[in-house]
Amino acid sequence: MSDVTSNYSDAGRRPVTLDVVAREAAVSLATASKVLNDKPGVSPQTRERVAEVLQRRGYTKRGTAQTYAPAIELVFGALDGAWPIELIRGAVQVASENGLGIVVTESGREHAAGPEWIGPVLQRQPAGVILVASDLATDAKYQLRSRNIPFVVVDPAGDPADDVPSVGSTNWAGGIQATRHLIELGHTRIGVIAGPESLLATRARIAGFRSAMDEAGLAVDENLVLRRAFEDEASPAAGMHLLSLENRPTAIFATSDVKALATYEAARTLGISIPTDLSIVGYDDLQFARWAGPPLTTIRQPLFEMAQSAVRLIIALRSEGRQAGRVELATSLVLRSSTQARP
Amino acid sequence: MSDVTSNYSDAGRRPVTLDVVAREAAVSLATASKVLNDKPGVSPQTRERVAEVLQRRGYTKRGTAQTYAPAIELVFGALDGAWPIELIRGAVQVASENGLGIVVTESGREHAAGPEWIGPVLQRQPAGVILVASDLATDAKYQLRSRNIPFVVVDPAGDPADDVPSVGSTNWAGGIQATRHLIELGHTRIGVIAGPESLLATRARIAGFRSAMDEAGLAVDENLVLRRAFEDEASPAAGMHLLSLENRPTAIFATSDVKALATYEAARTLGISIPTDLSIVGYDDLQFARWAGPPLTTIRQPLFEMAQSAVRLIIALRSEGRQAGRVELATSLVLRSSTQARP
Repeated sequence: MSDVTSNYSDAGRRPVTLDVVAREAAVSLATASKVLNDKPGVSPQTRERVAEVLQRRGYTKRGTAQTYAPAIELVFGALDGAWPIELIRGAVQVASENGLGIVVTESGREHAAGPEWIGPVLQRQPAGVILVASDLATDAKYQLRSRNIPFVVVDPAGDPADDVPSVGSTNWAGGIQATRHLIELGHTRIGVIAGPESLLATRARIAGFRSAMDEAGLAVDENLVLRRAFEDEASPAAGMHLLSLENRPTAIFATSDVKALATYEAARTLGISIPTDLSIVGYDDLQFARWAGPPLTTIRQPLFEMAQSAVRLIIALRSEGRQAGRVELATSLVLRSSTQARP
Repeated sequence: MSDVTSNYSDAGRRPVTLDVVAREAAVSLATASKVLNDKPGVSPQTRERVAEVLQRRGYTKRGTAQTYAPAIELVFGALDGAWPIELIRGAVQVASENGLGIVVTESGREHAAGPEWIGPVLQRQPAGVILVASDLATDAKYQLRSRNIPFVVVDPAGDPADDVPSVGSTNWAGGIQATRHLIELGHTRIGVIAGPESLLATRARIAGFRSAMDEAGLAVDENLVLRRAFEDEASPAAGMHLLSLENRPTAIFATSDVKALATYEAARTLGISIPTDLSIVGYDDLQFARWAGPPLTTIRQPLFEMAQSAVRLIIALRSEGRQAGRVELATSLVLRSSTQARP
C-alpha cells in the first residue's frame, strides 16, 4: 500500500475521489459510500478503516454546502455572572426545536455593544441576531437590515428605538412586588441597593419601589437608596454602609440576587441575623438564590422564557418580515426564607 | 410608487436585483451598492430607506455563501447548573480570537450523549465538536471522522477511548488537596459527600481522598463516605445524615460546590456553625462559592482554561490532522472561610 499512499502524498490540498478512498481502504466503492453516508451493513472494523482514510484524505462530501443549517447569534456584552446561562438555556431549547443552532458571542462591552462584534457575526450569516442587555447601534441595524437578518434585543439596557423588536420583563412591577411584600410584613424603613441608574431596568425597579412606598403612604429616606456601579456588585460595601447607619433599615430590597448575597455577607460580618434582624428581597431568581443561607426571597425575572420568546420572535420575523414591537414578560415574587415580619 | 410595488408583490420568492432595489428606494445604483456593502458616503436617511427596501425585498448578496465562517459545536448533556457558563466563556474567548463562533448545543442526556444530537450538528458543518462531560459513541466518532470534523471531549464522564482527544483536570490530585488541607487543620473524622461513582471524575476525587487519608495514617470510616446521584445534588439530605450521626464528622469534603452549599443548609438547620463546629471544602470553585456565607474554601477546577484548551486542540487538529491525546489541567486549593483548625 505504501506506493499508493505516496502517489497521493499531496492529497491534503487536492480533491480526492471516493474511488481512491475505497481503493486505499481495500473496500468496494459501495462500502465506502455506505460509510460516508452513515448507512448500515458495514462491520465496525471496516467502518473504522474507511472513516480513517476519509479523514486522512480530507475527503468532503460534495454538495453539502447547500444543506448548511444556520444558527442564531446570541450576543452578550460579557459572559459574566450567573444569568447568561439562563438565557442560553432558553434560547438553545427553542432553537433546537426549530432545527437552529445558537452561537454564543461576547461583544466585549457591557450595555453598549461596540462595532467590532458585528463583523464575525455577519460572516457567519446567521438566521438572526439576539442582543442581550445592549441596545443596537444605528450602523449595526443597517448592516443587519441590508442582509435581511432579523434582530431582537433582550432586556434592553436603554430605551430601545421604536424600530427594534425587544423582549424585556416588567421591571417596574417587579420593584413594586418586592417592596409591597416588605411593607405587608410591617417594614417601613426599607433600604435599596441598586445598580447604576444608566440602565433602564434599574430605573424601573427603583421607580417601582417608590410607587409601592407611595401607595402605602411611606416616605422614602433617600439616604437608604444606594445606586452602585456593576463592578461593585458582589462587594458587601453597600450593605455594610446601610447596616452601619444609626437608624438602619429593617429590610433591604437588592436589585439583583448577587447584591442580595453581598448584603448577606455584610450582615454576617456585623452579626445581624437574616431574617430575624433583617429581611432581604433579591431580584432575578438565579439558580444559586435557593442555595443561599437562608434561601433567598426574590423577584423572579423570567430569563429562560425571555430567551425563548426572543428566538420565537426571530423565527416569526424571518417568516413574516419586518415587524417591531416590545414584549414584556411578567415577574413574580418567589417566597423563601430571607424575609419575615418586622420585629 | 404603489404600482411599482405591486409589480413585485411576489418578490419574497423571486430574486430581486439591486437595480430594482435602487429604483424603488429612488437612489442611484451606486448608492444602493454603498448601502449594501456598508460603505460611507450615504446620508443616514437614505441609508435607512435603502436598507428598508433591501430587507423588504429579501435581497441577498450573491456569492456570500463562500465566505461563511464556521463555528465549533460545544455539546452539553444538559445546560444545568453553574458550571456550563465557565466552559462557554473559555470556549468563546479562544474561538473568537481565531475568528470562530461557538454553537452551544444540548444533547438532552447527561454523561452519555445519545444519537439524536449529531444530526443537527452535522448539518451545521462545524469546524469541530467539543463534547462536555460525555464520552463519544462509536457511531458518532465515525460520522465525525468521515466528514473530517475534529472532536475533543472535555471532562469525560468515563474513561475516554484511546483515539478520542480529551481535556480534563487532575481530579485525583484535587481529592488529595482537599483532604490534606483538612488533615493539616487537625481533622481526623472527615466525611465525604460525593456524586455517583459511575463518573470517572467522582471515582478519582474519592480515590484522592483515600490516598490522603492513607498517607496520614488515618482510617476511612465508610459510614462517612456518601455517594449520591446528581438529582439530589442540591438537597441537604446527605449533610443532614452525616451531621445527625452520633459521632459526626468535624469536617466534610463535598465533591462539588453545590453539594457543599447543600451541606451549609443542613448545618444551618441543625444549628451547627461553619467553620467553628464544622469545616467544609467544596469542589469546582464556581462563581457563587465566593458569595456563600461563609465564603467557601474549595478546589478550583479550571473549567475556563479547560474549554480554552479544548478549542485550541480543535484548531490544532484542523491544521495538523489526526492526533489523539489526553490533557489534564491542574486543580488548586482556594482558601476562603469555611475551614478552620479542629476545635
